[in-house]
Amino acid sequence: MKSRDGSDLWPFFEPHSVAVLGSLRDGMGLGYVLIKNMLDFGYTGRLYPVNPSYNEVLGMKVYRDVSGIAESLDLAVVMTPPHTVPTIIEQCAQKGVRAAVIVSENFADAGGEGAKLQQQLVDITEHSVIRIMGPNTVGVFNACNGFTTIPYPFGYDRVRKGGIAYCSQTGVVLPECQPLEDRAYPISKMCDVGNKCDVNEVDLLKYLTDDPETKVVAIHLEDVKDGRSFMNAARRLTARKPLLIFKSARSEAGARASASHTGSLAVNDRIYDDAIRQTGAIRVNTWREFWDIPKVFAYHPLPLSNRIAIITHSGGAGVVATDIAMESGLAIAKYTDATLARLADLSPRLARNPIDLGPPLSLTDDPMSLQEKVITMVLDDVNVDCANIVLYIGTMAPISYITEMFERLLKRVSKPVTVWFYGTKLSLIEEAARQLERLGVPTYTDQETAVKALGALVRYSKFKSGL
Amino acid sequence: MKSRDGSDLWPFFEPHSVAVLGSLRDGMGLGYVLIKNMLDFGYTGRLYPVNPSYNEVLGMKVYRDVSGIAESLDLAVVMTPPHTVPTIIEQCAQKGVRAAVIVSENFADAGGEGAKLQQQLVDITEHSVIRIMGPNTVGVFNACNGFTTIPYPFGYDRVRKGGIAYCSQTGVVLPECQPLEDRAYPISKMCDVGNKCDVNEVDLLKYLTDDPETKVVAIHLEDVKDGRSFMNAARRLTARKPLLIFKSARSEAGARASASHTGSLAVNDRIYDDAIRQTGAIRVNTWREFWDIPKVFAYHPLPLSNRIAIITHSGGAGVVATDIAMESGLAIAKYTDATLARLADLSPRLARNPIDLGPPLSLTDDPMSLQEKVITMVLDDVNVDCANIVLYIGTMAPISYITEMFERLLKRVSKPVTVWFYGTKLSLIEEAARQLERLGVPTYTDQETAVKALGALVRYSKFKSGL
Repeated sequence: MKSRDGSDLWPFFEPHSVAVLGSLRDGMGLGYVLIKNMLDFGYTGRLYPVNPSYNEVLGMKVYRDVSGIAESLDLAVVMTPPHTVPTIIEQCAQKGVRAAVIVSENFADAGGEGAKLQQQLVDITEHSVIRIMGPNTVGVFNACNGFTTIPYPFGYDRVRKGGIAYCSQTGVVLPECQPLEDRAYPISKMCDVGNKCDVNEVDLLKYLTDDPETKVVAIHLEDVKDGRSFMNAARRLTARKPLLIFKSARSEAGARASASHTGSLAVNDRIYDDAIRQTGAIRVNTWREFWDIPKVFAYHPLPLSNRIAIITHSGGAGVVATDIAMESGLAIAKYTDATLARLADLSPRLARNPIDLGPPLSLTDDPMSLQEKVITMVLDDVNVDCANIVLYIGTMAPISYITEMFERLLKRVSKPVTVWFYGTKLSLIEEAARQLERLGVPTYTDQETAVKALGALVRYSKFKSGL
Repeated sequence: MKSRDGSDLWPFFEPHSVAVLGSLRDGMGLGYVLIKNMLDFGYTGRLYPVNPSYNEVLGMKVYRDVSGIAESLDLAVVMTPPHTVPTIIEQCAQKGVRAAVIVSENFADAGGEGAKLQQQLVDITEHSVIRIMGPNTVGVFNACNGFTTIPYPFGYDRVRKGGIAYCSQTGVVLPECQPLEDRAYPISKMCDVGNKCDVNEVDLLKYLTDDPETKVVAIHLEDVKDGRSFMNAARRLTARKPLLIFKSARSEAGARASASHTGSLAVNDRIYDDAIRQTGAIRVNTWREFWDIPKVFAYHPLPLSNRIAIITHSGGAGVVATDIAMESGLAIAKYTDATLARLADLSPRLARNPIDLGPPLSLTDDPMSLQEKVITMVLDDVNVDCANIVLYIGTMAPISYITEMFERLLKRVSKPVTVWFYGTKLSLIEEAARQLERLGVPTYTDQETAVKALGALVRYSKFKSGL
């Protein structure tokens, strides 16, 4: 029988042999694009295109159906018209295929006949070992081995390997819809569970709990199939690694909208809120938080306590950071007398928190050196647990000044730091951010998220230490 | 005596003759950079560099002091060391200069001696007609006539003219710190009141109430000098045009941080919250909202009611938009039977709100045409007051498909629409956004802000109609 502990999800992420069932139309067909994507991202397992109308695609032999494939199959990716899918899945089950991703839409998501077709799939999973992801999903992306089931063009061919698993029940969260290369998110695995006829968020949490490549899990959900199982799985996960949950369909109207595209049911949002809190997971509330908060966990150790230092190029930004810090459960660090004295030696206006570097920098001939001294002194202070650093990126100084400073800082201290760049050119801000991300310093497009990320880190740290 | 109705602020924004007092060091001095900025942005008034150490700069004669200038002066921009400033301002007052921007720092913002120096400035304004902006400010930027008092390099030389006045008490809000060209914000005037020794937010609101080029005012504040005057000025402004307020220093620690860089005092945040609501102004709570919500007012007429249509390429994004709409006082529009029938004719899955165009688009050979038909039908519906449109920007179709569709839509309907693009390349998303902004369609980097902007529009509409 099925293990249901998540261990049987490996064929979705790390299959050795995959059948691709769908249109092989040159450059356009979903099957064609999927095979192209797998090759582009460096998947090296065995591939079996299946389509009765073709003999060859991209130099590969095409099979009429899965039963014609002599070798064993770990996974089938199915992108055929809905009415053909139950028969195909039945054939897969009979051949002993371990898992299937059903990309095709118009099942429970469309209601009526579609819902009946989906029930046929459920019936198959109940009398066989095959696991099904979907229907109505793009499936998975595995940054570690280049494997993907996404049959749409990406527009880029590199995703940075790292510790974040992003999961959802919608494809909008997967790499064919997001600027993952431009933002340099450090990613382990991504997954869209779609209509969840079999594999759902609980299976996924179980699998990712044990996945050595995943350090933090971020999941976007509109509903939860089984609340008790979800809470148990979430608790087991948060005991090992942090879990961030973006639960949308908060409003009644949102839940109705969700039901109409996923076929799921509404539950009062406060129940979710309480449940998430009880499991030690952290609820995020916007797409931006969903994308940008996890990386602080992927890069940084947990802080010892909640005392934040704020260092900016703008007094106004320092005040905003202070507000958000207070609203996120952080405390404004009080530097030691020794640090205060050393800062005051540089300039009396520096001996405070938040620090506005702006005025002192404008009075010195070597602003980069002064800046590095101040940041180093503050991060060295034993009363400082974490820091939000706000830097202006101008057209005058090269970005390398900033990255080289952080290279030196990272050798010296390992406290969590988040960075918000502001400036007059988006391209410079984005490039500076990418360079810091490569060093393992999380950068933010919004100052508020940069501070909230530290708040999330502190909250999980307290949860882990039983506070 | 002074009018104090805001009418005497014109010399700050529209001076015919300006003295620049500061370092003229080639390419570096604040005075030099300021004159360069004025010339680059096309200011055509008379310019008088003042500095005892120079005879000529950028082909212009340099004066020893303002008294040596024979012609009358509307404005002096002062960037000299703090202890020299009171004497200079006294000279300006005696010459009959109407206004001065004091860029120099280290007055009340530094405390101690600085606070005493600032008091000397206050004394001068009390016995003369000169108005002072600052100290500790970069002053103004006027997109309408290219005039600016900002002595820092911008990194670009065009700001798009439009209806938004952005004001603050920090320079971080001004164009030398923001990607205004890249984001194509439609701007009338910008102003940083700094330490507010004379000109403050109340003067500014009065001036902008009557400014014909300003359609909407967004102001960032850490404190208010005189609550009653502020409320009166805000009320007069909101009777004419919308006012958005980003009040930071919300927390006690934030107010302390603010006091340390502006010399201002803390007031319980709830008092601000109530006061802002009573004036009909709209409070925004993040930098992102401060920057991105005003444009919905600059481009769009006020909606008749609060019924939103949501059209997306992603069911998941439709659910998030629905949540935010409900939290922002919007109602999910119920289409007329005629619209529902026409939508169902195209595809049964389209006859709903939110609409997920994703599945129908994937089934047609002419997705652009189907998309335009659906959006047109929905915007034509009498039960729809405004819309949030979420579009995927891919590498397959040119951006011009999108902009041309909006050109046609704008000829047909004038209902407020906000757009959120998502996709795999930041450069494409940013370029698509700029193109729509040029057409007068507000675009958003965050879906949540795109929906909140419509909520703000509806709130002001209700306020104006006395609801």
